[in-house]
Amino acid sequence: MTRSLWIDEKGRATSGGIGESMLALIRELYPVGRSITGPGLRVTVARLSEIVPLQVTEVPSGSRVFDWTVPDEWSVEEAYIETADGRRVVDMKDSNLHVVGYSVPVEAEMTLAELRPHLHSLPGHPDWIPYRTSYYSPNWGFCLTDRVLQSLAEGRYRVVIRSRLAPGSLTLAEYVHPGETAEEVLVFAHDCHPSLANDNLSGLAVAINLAAFLRSRRTRYTYRFVFAPATIGSITWLATNESALHRIRHGLVLSLLGDKGPLHYKVTRAGDQAIDRAAWHVLSTEFPGSKKVDFLPWGYDERQFGSPGVNLAVGRITRTPNGEFPEYHTSADNPDFLSAESLAESWLACLKVLEALDGDARYINTQPKGEPQLGRRGLYRSTGGHQDVPERQLALLWVLNQSDGMHSLLDIAERSRLPFRVISEAAADLERAGLLTPAG
Amino acid sequence: MTRSLWIDEKGRATSGGIGESMLALIRELYPVGRSITGPGLRVTVARLSEIVPLQVTEVPSGSRVFDWTVPDEWSVEEAYIETADGRRVVDMKDSNLHVVGYSVPVEAEMTLAELRPHLHSLPGHPDWIPYRTSYYSPNWGFCLTDRVLQSLAEGRYRVVIRSRLAPGSLTLAEYVHPGETAEEVLVFAHDCHPSLANDNLSGLAVAINLAAFLRSRRTRYTYRFVFAPATIGSITWLATNESALHRIRHGLVLSLLGDKGPLHYKVTRAGDQAIDRAAWHVLSTEFPGSKKVDFLPWGYDERQFGSPGVNLAVGRITRTPNGEFPEYHTSADNPDFLSAESLAESWLACLKVLEALDGDARYINTQPKGEPQLGRRGLYRSTGGHQDVPERQLALLWVLNQSDGMHSLLDIAERSRLPFRVISEAAADLERAGLLTPAG
Amino acid sequence: MTRSLWIDEKGRATSGGIGESMLALIRELYPVGRSITGPGLRVTVARLSEIVPLQVTEVPSGSRVFDWTVPDEWSVEEAYIETADGRRVVDMKDSNLHVVGYSVPVEAEMTLAELRPHLHSLPGHPDWIPYRTSYYSPNWGFCLTDRVLQSLAEGRYRVVIRSRLAPGSLTLAEYVHPGETAEEVLVFAHDCHPSLANDNLSGLAVAINLAAFLRSRRTRYTYRFVFAPATIGSITWLATNESALHRIRHGLVLSLLGDKGPLHYKVTRAGDQAIDRAAWHVLSTEFPGSKKVDFLPWGYDERQFGSPGVNLAVGRITRTPNGEFPEYHTSADNPDFLSAESLAESWLACLKVLEALDGDARYINTQPKGEPQLGRRGLYRSTGGHQDVPERQLALLWVLNQSDGMHSLLDIAERSRLPFRVISEAAADLERAGLLTPAG
Repeated sequence: MTRSLWIDEKGRATSGGIGESMLALIRELYPVGRSITGPGLRVTVARLSEIVPLQVTEVPSGSRVFDWTVPDEWSVEEAYIETADGRRVVDMKDSNLHVVGYSVPVEAEMTLAELRPHLHSLPGHPDWIPYRTSYYSPNWGFCLTDRVLQSLAEGRYRVVIRSRLAPGSLTLAEYVHPGETAEEVLVFAHDCHPSLANDNLSGLAVAINLAAFLRSRRTRYTYRFVFAPATIGSITWLATNESALHRIRHGLVLSLLGDKGPLHYKVTRAGDQAIDRAAWHVLSTEFPGSKKVDFLPWGYDERQFGSPGVNLAVGRITRTPNGEFPEYHTSADNPDFLSAESLAESWLACLKVLEALDGDARYINTQPKGEPQLGRRGLYRSTGGHQDVPERQLALLWVLNQSDGMHSLLDIAERSRLPFRVISEAAADLERAGLLTPAG
Repeated sequence: MTRSLWIDEKGRATSGGIGESMLALIRELYPVGRSITGPGLRVTVARLSEIVPLQVTEVPSGSRVFDWTVPDEWSVEEAYIETADGRRVVDMKDSNLHVVGYSVPVEAEMTLAELRPHLHSLPGHPDWIPYRTSYYSPNWGFCLTDRVLQSLAEGRYRVVIRSRLAPGSLTLAEYVHPGETAEEVLVFAHDCHPSLANDNLSGLAVAINLAAFLRSRRTRYTYRFVFAPATIGSITWLATNESALHRIRHGLVLSLLGDKGPLHYKVTRAGDQAIDRAAWHVLSTEFPGSKKVDFLPWGYDERQFGSPGVNLAVGRITRTPNGEFPEYHTSADNPDFLSAESLAESWLACLKVLEALDGDARYINTQPKGEPQLGRRGLYRSTGGHQDVPERQLALLWVLNQSDGMHSLLDIAERSRLPFRVISEAAADLERAGLLTPAG
Repeated sequence: MTRSLWIDEKGRATSGGIGESMLALIRELYPVGRSITGPGLRVTVARLSEIVPLQVTEVPSGSRVFDWTVPDEWSVEEAYIETADGRRVVDMKDSNLHVVGYSVPVEAEMTLAELRPHLHSLPGHPDWIPYRTSYYSPNWGFCLTDRVLQSLAEGRYRVVIRSRLAPGSLTLAEYVHPGETAEEVLVFAHDCHPSLANDNLSGLAVAINLAAFLRSRRTRYTYRFVFAPATIGSITWLATNESALHRIRHGLVLSLLGDKGPLHYKVTRAGDQAIDRAAWHVLSTEFPGSKKVDFLPWGYDERQFGSPGVNLAVGRITRTPNGEFPEYHTSADNPDFLSAESLAESWLACLKVLEALDGDARYINTQPKGEPQLGRRGLYRSTGGHQDVPERQLALLWVLNQSDGMHSLLDIAERSRLPFRVISEAAADLERAGLLTPAG
């Protein structure tokens, strides 16, 4: 039996609504101060759990994970810079980005010259606050707009960061949707960035809504959604789940999915895996303007999944890639930078990629000599001589022509340049008519 | 011994004459009312047999051919629409296209509103009559210019189609030119279209003239020319010749060869067969502007030859492909739409493709260490230092360089981008000089 | 241990000086009258031996070399054309190019009409003298500017060529730089052209200076530099060294390296050898504007190395290829046509190609699960969140990601599009940090 397609015309129509709902979730989570460990991460995971219940694992500080060690947990209560006369010129209350992530505690008076090496700004974007961290090198610092930095008078400043670095744990969260087989599709989104909307509240919103959608569907694959901090989080997850990694057949890293740029698919390390073919087929045929990007060991957690000792077939879907839009890693990456339409389109694209992956199968044409007579089975228009052929009939002909047991529906969709859905529906019609039977 | 090339400079010069002769044949056969069965088909085959004697096979109505059944034979005596006052507004006497192919008999009076669902016109081309058929669904209808359709007044009309649908047979015709081996090259042209010139009187004219040319030549392959109706005809031929199909090594479907567009080669289902390479090499090097088209299970009888249970390496040569010129399947596809030059060029191109296929062979360079000294054998100019190298000498160097038993003349022609004929002539010269010997 | 890179920043800075020095050598050797045998060839080889001592081999006239025979040795004392009143209108003293190479002796009076078939000029470039030879067909002739040719009055002329064709020998010269292995890289430059600067004094200058550079370096491969006449010289060298050819793994023909055009790499006969990949990687990433040219059995001695019975992986580096600049094989190809910058760049490009070939190796990432923590090893900047990644850090990530024992440094350089040197330096850093170990 051909697997039912998940997204019908009606499903597509609702995607407008889902975009607004994702944007609302992003606005809600935007003010939370996240880092690679700590309370902000737990608040975020708890909110996502209201949509789809996530299983949370806390990995203690000091745990060895591959070449790394889970760091102490970091939290920060307040952080500000005051002038000698008590005026706060920079205050974390205004933006989580003001304090460099993992800053060690400090409470001191110093001159502007002494303070300056600890201040980060963006001269090219004088009204934006940059995002900086120092996870593994004990340090402290403030990020501020260049306009404020330039306005600071010489003199003495009081500098306060009330942070805490102490043994605690790193928070992992996941949801598993069981399928017909134990073979898994991994969907990963990093959740450690503080008040940045595209990076990666957009990825969290799309991933949790993919999980919510699949929850009520029958699927061939088992789907595993993992939410974890970037780099140390995916490494921790890989190290603590090493014995189960062999089940993962395909995977996607999701991030930067709310800006108005075109969709970008970054291929797996091998570059020619099923997920690469499914993703690029769907994006190139159904989302005009999409771009394919080569693998590069730089970016997000695809770097870890694609390391030589892990080597999972994990691709990445973003809209504009990291570093290629000026708002990246600045205070300008806020909810107003995103659009509900982009989020909805990203969600739909991801779903269609998973649909193509899940619904791919090989069939055998039961009447392989010449074309079968589709007309008498009601699958073909009865008058002949027309100049063109409808896409639907062309799909029937393609599926019949290529279904020799060697070509899967995705192969056929790729060769015909017809959307996977059209090919898949044609296969379903042909199977109903007795002209197609599953291979093997 | 290198096989002699078929087409010399003199042969090329005569191709102008062959174009005129093919166009005359097309004008003669244009008025004949053909369909997938019936008397028009037999008249056409009889006329082609005057050029090269064809062996005719009649396959009875009702015969099971793969998934299909040979239909009843159809003939039509007259077909017209009359106004209440006896004025004939549409009459098959003016054009065979006026009656929908395989229309069932009708003799009735009806209102324009009742008649209208049976009328077919082309609003975008108000002076052209479209071509429509209804082979497998009992129906009747008329095709007419949109100008006439729009001029019809409300009122009652008398509708007459004196057709006959009765057990008879489907007509197949073929000619076999025996070669040195039993391995066959199939050349197929469909012959079922009524008064349409490019589709496919042009294909018939080119195919029968290729047969006439080869008749007096010694060839390596056996050449089988088949003339049959589209779809049901090729299916009938395949089904009734199934046990002999294994002899077919290469094939070409010929159609749409008289318009002024560039030559198009449509690759076989596999896309990388010897016929694909020979055809595209010849077209791309010798017929500038030619285009290569991917396989698509839509078009002409390459669909049947390329079905998974038949899977013969059959490509297709046309000029402008089906559906890509507005005159396609309309009364505007008449002899005036064709040119003798195009027909002659198509014939020459097909012949050169067959020549490259037939003349391909592997050789061994007998002096493979360094270049042999061509000068002392009279194969190389005696002065050195020139800025360029003549094509003929370059061909000698290419053949010597690549003739290691692994590369055939077609391989060498492809890599060097020199015409096959030039490479083939160089091989003949080198063999005469003792520098080349057949491989294997 | 990673092999040390040859060319440091300082080495690059000196390449200006090397260009001037090569141009001076070319000016010095330009007036020498060379041919495929004879005294000019020995003078040239003796001068090159002052830079790097060459081993000279004389192969006697009449020796059978593959399909060829070493010709008699040719020398010419004087050659001129005089008018009846004793005015010399063409005189070899003015340019070696005036006499057709290998002209037989002549001393005769004749009319202009009788003389004319022996005169060669370039009507399109009336002030340039062409270069012509007649090595294997006994003949004589003069090359002259078309302006002089057109000015010759009817009447009688005295024609004198005091040349000598007699048993002697053909001169081969080579230098071997021993490496860690007996596997060889062949560098070949033809040395038979008379007063032509780009063709091929430029190739001689670059080749001898590559030899001089490598002389003091430790290399993996053994490097064999061969200087010999074109065609008959490479054939003679191949025939007399046949039993040792199996040691040659890679090779380059060097010629036309001083003009201002972009660098061109002509691939080996197979087109996909290590030398092809190293050369094109270096040229395409470090020498913008470089072009890759397909193999063609026409050009220089790559034709002989790429003949089917020899079949060595020898590519070719030139700037503008033979025949593609108007000065080619004319008196306009003189030292003023060359630039020291072009010569220096050619030398550097060749050296970098050899460096990539010699330094290529496979490694294993010792921490292959996820990325190793580079920060604590001082290999990574300590602050996070930046928009971009420095090339050097990207190279570290690429080497770690791809070092699974299957990919060599050249593979990684090709895939990352980073210069080989940057990848090679990253590998050295990682090996020092214990993160990389040689494969196999």
